[in-house]
Amino acid sequence: MKLTLDLGERSYDIIVERGCSARAGEYLDLDRRVLIVTDDGVPEQYADRVAAVCREPVKVTVPQGEGSKSIRRFEELLGEMLAHGFTRRDCVVAVGGGVVGDLSGFAASAYMRGVDFYNIPTTSLSQIDSSVGGKTAVNLGGIKNVVGAFYQPRRVLVDPDVLATLPERQMAAGLAEAVKMAAALDGELFSMFETCDISSSLEELIARSVAIKKRVVEADEREGGLRRVLNFGHTIGHGIEAEEELHGLCHGECVALGMLPMCSETVRARLLGVYSRLGLRAEYDYDVDRVIAAALHDKKSDGGGVTVVIVERIGEFRFEHLSPDMLRARLTDYIRENRI
Amino acid sequence: MKLTLDLGERSYDIIVERGCSARAGEYLDLDRRVLIVTDDGVPEQYADRVAAVCREPVKVTVPQGEGSKSIRRFEELLGEMLAHGFTRRDCVVAVGGGVVGDLSGFAASAYMRGVDFYNIPTTSLSQIDSSVGGKTAVNLGGIKNVVGAFYQPRRVLVDPDVLATLPERQMAAGLAEAVKMAAALDGELFSMFETCDISSSLEELIARSVAIKKRVVEADEREGGLRRVLNFGHTIGHGIEAEEELHGLCHGECVALGMLPMCSETVRARLLGVYSRLGLRAEYDYDVDRVIAAALHDKKSDGGGVTVVIVERIGEFRFEHLSPDMLRARLTDYIRENRI
Repeated sequence: MKLTLDLGERSYDIIVERGCSARAGEYLDLDRRVLIVTDDGVPEQYADRVAAVCREPVKVTVPQGEGSKSIRRFEELLGEMLAHGFTRRDCVVAVGGGVVGDLSGFAASAYMRGVDFYNIPTTSLSQIDSSVGGKTAVNLGGIKNVVGAFYQPRRVLVDPDVLATLPERQMAAGLAEAVKMAAALDGELFSMFETCDISSSLEELIARSVAIKKRVVEADEREGGLRRVLNFGHTIGHGIEAEEELHGLCHGECVALGMLPMCSETVRARLLGVYSRLGLRAEYDYDVDRVIAAALHDKKSDGGGVTVVIVERIGEFRFEHLSPDMLRARLTDYIRENRI
Repeated sequence: MKLTLDLGERSYDIIVERGCSARAGEYLDLDRRVLIVTDDGVPEQYADRVAAVCREPVKVTVPQGEGSKSIRRFEELLGEMLAHGFTRRDCVVAVGGGVVGDLSGFAASAYMRGVDFYNIPTTSLSQIDSSVGGKTAVNLGGIKNVVGAFYQPRRVLVDPDVLATLPERQMAAGLAEAVKMAAALDGELFSMFETCDISSSLEELIARSVAIKKRVVEADEREGGLRRVLNFGHTIGHGIEAEEELHGLCHGECVALGMLPMCSETVRARLLGVYSRLGLRAEYDYDVDRVIAAALHDKKSDGGGVTVVIVERIGEFRFEHLSPDMLRARLTDYIRENRI
């Protein structure tokens, strides 16, 4: 299945197809110098089989985890391209999850002010969410994604087959982003999550999620308006994520938790049903002060308050600007009502 | 005089007006956090009077010179913004020459994937050339401008009054870029350089040069075609510049030298006349091998050769792709014919 993201001269195709990453040579122009970026948590074979079909591959493996989204690693990738004589006509291929895509996409955006960038996401989270839309970034001073660029890839290869090697928990966490989009924008997809056999429907679930993301990005490339709907669950989610790395929760799990205080009771009940099918946790031992403080430190916060996405009926959403007090009240009410 | 650079949603105004930098508060939205970037070669008063009209100024002074166009300084500026709680709605103002503009523009492009950027160029070179067009960059591994972004400013204030403090030699070197644009694109402006009193016509000369640059950038924002005309003189010029920092020549002087082998005899004679009026040197002790090697290392080089701009009649130009041998032959012929 081929989806075309229509952004004028920055348009590109997203191929969603089992086995497409093994046929990268058919889909991507690799007859040039190619910087392949992967991490040591990704099975080596995925990057190696891309390298095998490049004319001049240069493979860089960064350590797994957020720590690699740094200006140091950014500089390292640029230095590799420079050392291998990359010109404006050469390219970068990301083979990995969101960390690899964000880091290498930013390096591609900056090398000679922009070389071609291809993304081959290998996690459910990056296949559904981060590989589409052109947001690239690294972290600085403990703040996530605070340095980066809007830079669209030339093509994205989404291959559900590579998810076979993904740990179950990471798989479910990634699907939380699909559930998020379905809850706010696509009631039909949400129903699929409630009824279909998830693992045998994976290709369709992913393709439909990517199609939603595509439509949102087309309508609002630079996150000036509609695109913020994708932040559903992210205000509190980021708060949880930032508050305590030690809980060991990953991004998608935090987003799943973050949606629960931002919806109606009916929606919450349906979300909980889906979480249970996916094996996503629904409880969290809130330290309200710290979560709120961390949520307000998030870069989307605005003049002391924050604009959040509220879902009161599946498939619909609205934006609401909340002062810090209102945000606190909403979270506290949710905790009390649900006896968390 | 107000020129509007028309790039759709990235359009912006360039104010060319004596005294406009002293009235920055009238032209720029400074009622927010403002990172003011300058260097220690720029008279302090220029940045300070901008700071005086900002709600929350944060001033950073980097050392004068190319050395400040580094990833380290880029990170430093980002860190300053982060430390002062800059949001997406805050901004960066460059007060200085090309180094300050390139560095701070790149930082503005990357902070939270882009905050507003204003440029107040304080040298003739940056007023005429680098402040308009959205090319931002830092250097890496000894290669100039190899890391950066196309990122348009929100507004540019070109104030000829600030050139009063500029050393004469730097003044002339900057005007070389105006002569370059005139030679390739505007015969009338070229005649002005041949006949008018330069210092009393400065505002008009600058305004007309900016107007040329504006038209070229409008036609080709990302340097896919026409914009490369601005490289007239730059292939050999960069070669000279890279070959020996120790000659102590500055960029505009190298460009002036670099135009001479790339034009007809008639054009050369007229160029030399203008150089003499401006006090620009016309001789250079060429080490052909090294200049050619450095020129071909330049990032515009392509598959062993390089596309150059040739001017055979004032106001007209053509592109020509030269192999390394052809480039060498052209330079050698020029040196022989002119007994340099």
